[in-house]
Amino acid sequence: MFETAELGAKISREAFDAAAGKLRLDLLALQEKLRQADFPVIVLFAGVDGAGKTETVNLINEWLDPHWIVTRAYEAPSQEEGERPSFWRYWRDLPKCGQIGLFLSGWYSRPVLQHVYGEISTAEFDYRLDHIKTFERLLADDGALILKFWMHLDKKGQKKRLTALEADPLQAWKVTKKDWRNWKRYESFIATAEHAIRRTDTSHARWAIVDGSDERFRSLTVLQTLHDALERQLDLRAHKRPAVKTAKPALLKASVLSALDMTQTVDKNSYEQELQEARADLALLAREAHKRGISSVALFEGWDAAGKGGAIRRVAAALDARHRQVVPVAAPTDEEKAHHYLWRFWRHLPRAGHMLIYDRSWYGRLLVERVEGFARPEEWERAYAEINDFEDQLLHHGMVLAKFWLHITPEEQYKRFAERDAVAYKKWKLTDEDWRNRSKWDAYEAAVHEMVERTSSAAAPWDLIEGNDKNFARIKIIRSLADRLRQRLART
Amino acid sequence: MFETAELGAKISREAFDAAAGKLRLDLLALQEKLRQADFPVIVLFAGVDGAGKTETVNLINEWLDPHWIVTRAYEAPSQEEGERPSFWRYWRDLPKCGQIGLFLSGWYSRPVLQHVYGEISTAEFDYRLDHIKTFERLLADDGALILKFWMHLDKKGQKKRLTALEADPLQAWKVTKKDWRNWKRYESFIATAEHAIRRTDTSHARWAIVDGSDERFRSLTVLQTLHDALERQLDLRAHKRPAVKTAKPALLKASVLSALDMTQTVDKNSYEQELQEARADLALLAREAHKRGISSVALFEGWDAAGKGGAIRRVAAALDARHRQVVPVAAPTDEEKAHHYLWRFWRHLPRAGHMLIYDRSWYGRLLVERVEGFARPEEWERAYAEINDFEDQLLHHGMVLAKFWLHITPEEQYKRFAERDAVAYKKWKLTDEDWRNRSKWDAYEAAVHEMVERTSSAAAPWDLIEGNDKNFARIKIIRSLADRLRQRLART
Repeated sequence: MFETAELGAKISREAFDAAAGKLRLDLLALQEKLRQADFPVIVLFAGVDGAGKTETVNLINEWLDPHWIVTRAYEAPSQEEGERPSFWRYWRDLPKCGQIGLFLSGWYSRPVLQHVYGEISTAEFDYRLDHIKTFERLLADDGALILKFWMHLDKKGQKKRLTALEADPLQAWKVTKKDWRNWKRYESFIATAEHAIRRTDTSHARWAIVDGSDERFRSLTVLQTLHDALERQLDLRAHKRPAVKTAKPALLKASVLSALDMTQTVDKNSYEQELQEARADLALLAREAHKRGISSVALFEGWDAAGKGGAIRRVAAALDARHRQVVPVAAPTDEEKAHHYLWRFWRHLPRAGHMLIYDRSWYGRLLVERVEGFARPEEWERAYAEINDFEDQLLHHGMVLAKFWLHITPEEQYKRFAERDAVAYKKWKLTDEDWRNRSKWDAYEAAVHEMVERTSSAAAPWDLIEGNDKNFARIKIIRSLADRLRQRLART
Repeated sequence: MFETAELGAKISREAFDAAAGKLRLDLLALQEKLRQADFPVIVLFAGVDGAGKTETVNLINEWLDPHWIVTRAYEAPSQEEGERPSFWRYWRDLPKCGQIGLFLSGWYSRPVLQHVYGEISTAEFDYRLDHIKTFERLLADDGALILKFWMHLDKKGQKKRLTALEADPLQAWKVTKKDWRNWKRYESFIATAEHAIRRTDTSHARWAIVDGSDERFRSLTVLQTLHDALERQLDLRAHKRPAVKTAKPALLKASVLSALDMTQTVDKNSYEQELQEARADLALLAREAHKRGISSVALFEGWDAAGKGGAIRRVAAALDARHRQVVPVAAPTDEEKAHHYLWRFWRHLPRAGHMLIYDRSWYGRLLVERVEGFARPEEWERAYAEINDFEDQLLHHGMVLAKFWLHITPEEQYKRFAERDAVAYKKWKLTDEDWRNRSKWDAYEAAVHEMVERTSSAAAPWDLIEGNDKNFARIKIIRSLADRLRQRLART
């Protein structure tokens, strides 16, 4: 989930200045419209200390007309607040129609910290998240625009930031002992935050995860997101059909895919040996999983010609044919179309001890159906939460879930297409659609980026596979799948 | 919650035959339309054993074209089902577009029974309910029409029913040992069911609570509800604005209000004595609650001229003026209108040890705003869940919540209005609006009936007060409020 915010995205001063002037004017114009509108805007800032939450809130106050902004930050509840239900202090502070409310350490802060420090159980934590969800839906049903920003730094980045602040006599006061205490619990904090974000990332109150390491980048990202969402909501409330935005994250030049080292290869001489060892390892683990009745789902997505089929055949070959099944996912049948889009995946889940391998999967909703317009925006936007919930059910049942994205560069894809075109017996593999999809590379890449951001989690992470070298990819996939089984078997 | 289904509603054979013929033809016509439509219908039957779940499902199959009906009933999971996530068997059985799926012992059944028998914790129960909610929303977002019927019998009624079935040689097989075992846990079963219904009664998947004691009544109620919902959904999906239905439950002649014994009075000679004793009791308990920091909310709703003001003054007089506050709720101010309708109630919640008395309350949303059209149907339909969640937060915080509906008969109201008109110093109390509201008595009564059905719970029940005799009402209110405090104080 946080992979996308650890790419070290940066914006130069020149680029920032070039974008900022217009954005600021546009935002002021939108705020002017908002004042006449029939809804409030609620913006929450959460995230890692030092990732620029306060600075961003200050910047918004500076850029916009502060008369119509309400800024609130919360400490531990006062005695007066402690005497009321825990939401009382937020209830009172909600912005009214036409206002923008900026919330620091809002309703997520205490449940998250209390869970990190073991003061509340996971059940109580889930109860509170459920209430938060209900609360946000109530506000959204009433028309409120809700934006939630997770300002992120990785562990090293946070240490660097806190140390730098401490070294600056003018800013040293910003770093407290509590910040360092929290830093020591970084892993637990991040795991808890991930759980909270997944449970509360709904289509009417979305989380945006922002790389906080570069001030200019994070500022522009937040303000651009606010701008786009506000513009859209004003259109919607005025019963205008909002313009469909390009799927590409506005400022992000680097996607999670562009961060992969695509030069990785495996030595041709050692390939057979490594493959054999990896397969033997996987076979052993799969047999043990079968014995213990643990079932698995492995799904494969990737660019056309990225080598999904070949990789799947290598995986399948390592497994007992009686205990695994490969399901190729094509366009839905008439019967499948008459059901919810998840129905065709619900139907054939593996029984105990079996492994199901999907060649393409439910993620089609967020990839081809999104980019090609087969699903309406409200449909695929809903799908993130629907898929997260579906996968939670699989994990809750004790299943293993492995998700692979096979990546190749556009150049490599072109080479492979050309080769197919040239080689008669490979020609059937190449259709006009393949060439068409290629022209939408950028849109697909942005969709993959967002898919990883919003559906990758510690329990069901996306494995991004560098696939320019097919052999390298195959070995990495088999090893990764084996590791996932190993982890699951170690748990019970 | 179940008060409304324990009124012993009956329909005569003649009335049934008169209604059934047309209803059946209308339903068949709707089913014909549904076959061409782009959504499925999902109907769940839950409730007390013996309340006619199976019989109703059979009747639907008899009345409609069974080719387009899927009927499913579930036992304990088979081995094959146990090997998959618990929802797998429902996932597979979902009806497709154009079909009606009838589910007996569906997804609520196992969590409820497991909770009743202590096999799962309340936290796990809540987790499952949360998942059910998410699942139903996913289906509804996709267009599905979801109806959930709770077929009800009170404890005595169930015993009578099971005994009667056992006595009939042709039907004795229907009663199993399990039924009697469940019957012994009736109270626990009902409490668990109430919790489940409250948590999952959403505007897109509503529960209907049906009095199961009379076969003709329950059959017509279910089929009429199915008819109305199907007609509405067909209109909605065809982008037609559905006709606004009258608020009155179609077949219910008797409301919870009509079941009250309005002849109750208190002896004039003993009134002062009884009042003094009740007030002394309340005062003592309120002092203890103050000492312990337990806060309370008491809210009053009722017909115009039902005597709310007088009753509130009597309650307030028993309490320490420093520790209680009376808040009269009038039409919202401009500022209040610019917020969510609950905002004005969120603002002034009592601090620890204090009691807040609302003269009218958030229930205005479900009463005057509904009946007068100040709130749109989708707004007040949402409000049941919103209010239940809000009150849950108060209870979760440990507050006492008392809700009073002051009832008078139309004749008594007329008498009081006429009296006000005649007595100069009471004249200001009577406005044109009072006379206007009077003409909508039936619509208000239906709204009150549904409000009680959907927002009364064991932890925050509605107290329906027989108010034709003002003195009787005042004493009953003070005693009831005292009892509520007493129960809360006994808990810790």
